[in-house]
Amino acid sequence: MTERRMTGRPASPGLASGPVFTIGKPKPRTERKAPAQEDGDAALRTAIDSALVDLVSLVEAVDEEGADIIGFQIAMLEDEALSEGAFDAIAAGVPPVHAWRSALEAEIADYERSEDAYFRARGTDLADIRDRVLAHLTGAAESEKVPPGSVLVGEDLPPSLFLSVDWSKGGAIALGAGSPSSHVAMLARSRRVPMVTGLGALEEASQAIVDGAAGTVTFDPDSASLADFGPALARRHEADARAETMKAEPVFLPNGTRVDIMINVASPDDLKGISPEICDGIGLVRTEFLFEPGRPLPDEEAQYAAYVAIAAWADGRPVTIRTLDAGGDKPIAGVTSDGESNPFLGLRGLRLSLARPETFRVQLRALARASLHHEIRIMLPMVTVPGELAEASALLDEVVASLIAEGTPCRRPPLGIMVEVPAAALGALRFPADFYSIGSNDLTQYTMAAARDIADVAGLNDAGDPAVLELMARAVGAGKARKVPVSICGDAAGEVRLVPKLIGVGLTCLSVPPALVGAVKAAIADFKHV
Amino acid sequence: MTERRMTGRPASPGLASGPVFTIGKPKPRTERKAPAQEDGDAALRTAIDSALVDLVSLVEAVDEEGADIIGFQIAMLEDEALSEGAFDAIAAGVPPVHAWRSALEAEIADYERSEDAYFRARGTDLADIRDRVLAHLTGAAESEKVPPGSVLVGEDLPPSLFLSVDWSKGGAIALGAGSPSSHVAMLARSRRVPMVTGLGALEEASQAIVDGAAGTVTFDPDSASLADFGPALARRHEADARAETMKAEPVFLPNGTRVDIMINVASPDDLKGISPEICDGIGLVRTEFLFEPGRPLPDEEAQYAAYVAIAAWADGRPVTIRTLDAGGDKPIAGVTSDGESNPFLGLRGLRLSLARPETFRVQLRALARASLHHEIRIMLPMVTVPGELAEASALLDEVVASLIAEGTPCRRPPLGIMVEVPAAALGALRFPADFYSIGSNDLTQYTMAAARDIADVAGLNDAGDPAVLELMARAVGAGKARKVPVSICGDAAGEVRLVPKLIGVGLTCLSVPPALVGAVKAAIADFKHV
Repeated sequence: MTERRMTGRPASPGLASGPVFTIGKPKPRTERKAPAQEDGDAALRTAIDSALVDLVSLVEAVDEEGADIIGFQIAMLEDEALSEGAFDAIAAGVPPVHAWRSALEAEIADYERSEDAYFRARGTDLADIRDRVLAHLTGAAESEKVPPGSVLVGEDLPPSLFLSVDWSKGGAIALGAGSPSSHVAMLARSRRVPMVTGLGALEEASQAIVDGAAGTVTFDPDSASLADFGPALARRHEADARAETMKAEPVFLPNGTRVDIMINVASPDDLKGISPEICDGIGLVRTEFLFEPGRPLPDEEAQYAAYVAIAAWADGRPVTIRTLDAGGDKPIAGVTSDGESNPFLGLRGLRLSLARPETFRVQLRALARASLHHEIRIMLPMVTVPGELAEASALLDEVVASLIAEGTPCRRPPLGIMVEVPAAALGALRFPADFYSIGSNDLTQYTMAAARDIADVAGLNDAGDPAVLELMARAVGAGKARKVPVSICGDAAGEVRLVPKLIGVGLTCLSVPPALVGAVKAAIADFKHV
Repeated sequence: MTERRMTGRPASPGLASGPVFTIGKPKPRTERKAPAQEDGDAALRTAIDSALVDLVSLVEAVDEEGADIIGFQIAMLEDEALSEGAFDAIAAGVPPVHAWRSALEAEIADYERSEDAYFRARGTDLADIRDRVLAHLTGAAESEKVPPGSVLVGEDLPPSLFLSVDWSKGGAIALGAGSPSSHVAMLARSRRVPMVTGLGALEEASQAIVDGAAGTVTFDPDSASLADFGPALARRHEADARAETMKAEPVFLPNGTRVDIMINVASPDDLKGISPEICDGIGLVRTEFLFEPGRPLPDEEAQYAAYVAIAAWADGRPVTIRTLDAGGDKPIAGVTSDGESNPFLGLRGLRLSLARPETFRVQLRALARASLHHEIRIMLPMVTVPGELAEASALLDEVVASLIAEGTPCRRPPLGIMVEVPAAALGALRFPADFYSIGSNDLTQYTMAAARDIADVAGLNDAGDPAVLELMARAVGAGKARKVPVSICGDAAGEVRLVPKLIGVGLTCLSVPPALVGAVKAAIADFKHV
């Protein structure tokens, strides 16, 4: 086999090499071992029970995050509504393998047709359930054991298969489809398993080297590639060690300019075990964690407590809290609007908050109160025209005035905008914001008209494109002209290959996930000139 | 009642005043007249038959376009699969009104959940069928007669109701929801019925004045508004008459610069009864009409014949033909990809053609052959990065070379790009295109991150925003620097209020729907200075 090098989307960093384990390869014995028609009902019941036993033992072996996912699958499988159709079909004479497969596929199609990203993602869990029961039905269940240290290769990876693998011996994941924002990608990042998605059509291979940070996979590596793997891994470990050392140190450009490195936080859990010493503040607190699907909207006290807890962690460093950024790929029942043909171009971010002032007011009250003793700044997402900032600013004034009238202690924090809509970048000077923060993910997908979660156009979704960089430079220029701070808090800030370009457009404040602080500081320290 | 003036989206121009007819108003007698349970089956059969009689008589009274829509409804209603569930429910004791309503609502929900815009639009037709049968079931069928000259007001308007109205006596449409790209809006434009969509929450009213061009509706107009209606209508008629006169004349700016007015053509039918004298060429031929849903892809001969026929009409004037612009809101079975979360940010336009080179090659061959004796130019939609133009250009070279090698007469026509992705506007200078044509619809929705078909963000979808105008100016500047032509072919070119802004950014070639040529020329002739 000749070496083939493919590029996909980086989903979890790290470098690994190993034998290929093909996910979901058809098992030749499948139909031969299928149970006879007469005992179909009993066969399906046994297969479902065995699958439940698997899942229950799995749920005990995994951590909380994994247990949530498997718990959902157990609940689905225990619900008789799921298997009802299959048992009816068996009673009508359909063989159990076909009966189960059709019943589940109809369900999966229903989920996948959903306009709601949450339900679409659940389609993967149902496919996982379908295959686990099928494996028991056909006696193929045993063959899914993955040898430790394997590179798992396939179209997509079911969460339960990920959780059944012993990753302590190494290994990696290389997917033809999939997405860096899937459940499995989240799991891979938290367990430090290198992973690449969106590779496209895959051929058979016996060995692979996965570079999760670069998003490349080398199938059937030749002797030169294999010889380089050891040194490359050593270099990677060295870089990791250096990043670890640099984490807590301030970083400067060759011309002496200090570059502030802040962190992005999606929930208070992200701060566990992390020292505030590693950062110059929090550049982005996402507040969606407060608005969990299926729960009532958080009241003012709950929000106040959460904001104060995060700001207290920061210990005097500035904390930028983004108001609710729902909609788009983040639906919230009862808040966001369903069934938009293109939710990324719909009612989301600040647009939604202004359309639901009763919800927005609660968040602004909690933020104004939490700002009293903390360096909190409020950041508005998806701002498009100056009128929206004016409307939010007036609402903040109104909220502060009414808190004062009630005698509730508060402070009006600075009010800034995310620059993530091309119109806001082009018109940045026209927004009287107290600060700007570039949201590179959305800015890139609108500027390039290419969604980050559609694999077919992933190549066009490039934050390093000259057009995207020009819009970033425009925001930096507006900040200089108006003498207000400018930062960047999108994923581009944490991509080492892009850091020189970001510094090149004049950015001197990058906000990145906590795990990337060291690597970004090391990349900046490596600059030879500005 | 005090006067209320609301602004929505212009869907069909014209000015009209009349008494309000509320669409789909609940009829108080509905449940009282519902048939008794024992003859439910017969009652539903009679109601379906009566509805079919309505539709068949309707299909005879309307033109071809209307007949297609009603024909689809007849086929649906004749299909027993549609009513099966309702008859089953009736057999189980459910009253026929409820049985029919639930059966149809489940179907409609299925259609509306579809990711495919074509199927979603069919949900309106099913709702139309549902209500027509319900009206017969409850004896309310008679009350849907719309008095001639009425202003129809409601959330949305079923196509069959539109077609049942006698519009020769005037009248207009004002909708809370709806879309300017719906079937009903198409019908309204072709029958010159003023129509406004997306007005939001509507209150009761007894009279209304609809200004379809401005997108405004005045409910319960006061005496001043009523007094102004007559003169306003007279001014409108005068303007129409002037536009009609100016249609065939060339138009100049006060500084003597000639402004070329071209036309947009969606199918050869658009050219029926129109003289080429009214335009300076065709600025946009959409080729999607060749790729009809449900039919095989058109072969080279069929495409060649269509292109030659359109170019022959133009009689020597330049004709810009856009290659297939499928995807986004224009799915084509077997060509476009299904189930994209945000199809406007997905595999569409040139991206799709490059991903399906076998289909693209056929179109390029037909275009190169048709160019031999005609002033044809090829225009590529959704170009984002220069590499895409290079790829298309290489494919055109290859196609021309192979036609020459075969001895088939052909010519390599000029190859230009649409400027409709922000990245292409910002980087226009980096594209070695033979011409640029601004696609203002997409350029606006990406720059503002607001889809044109989502009513909640319609206010942000403004082609006159400074950011959009700046991007247009950038394309104009690139054309001047590279000495190649620049035009605009999006809807903005036909909006009289925007024409001064377009001339302001330096555009001197506008391509508009044939019906708007006169009005745009009149608007330009009115300029006092440039």
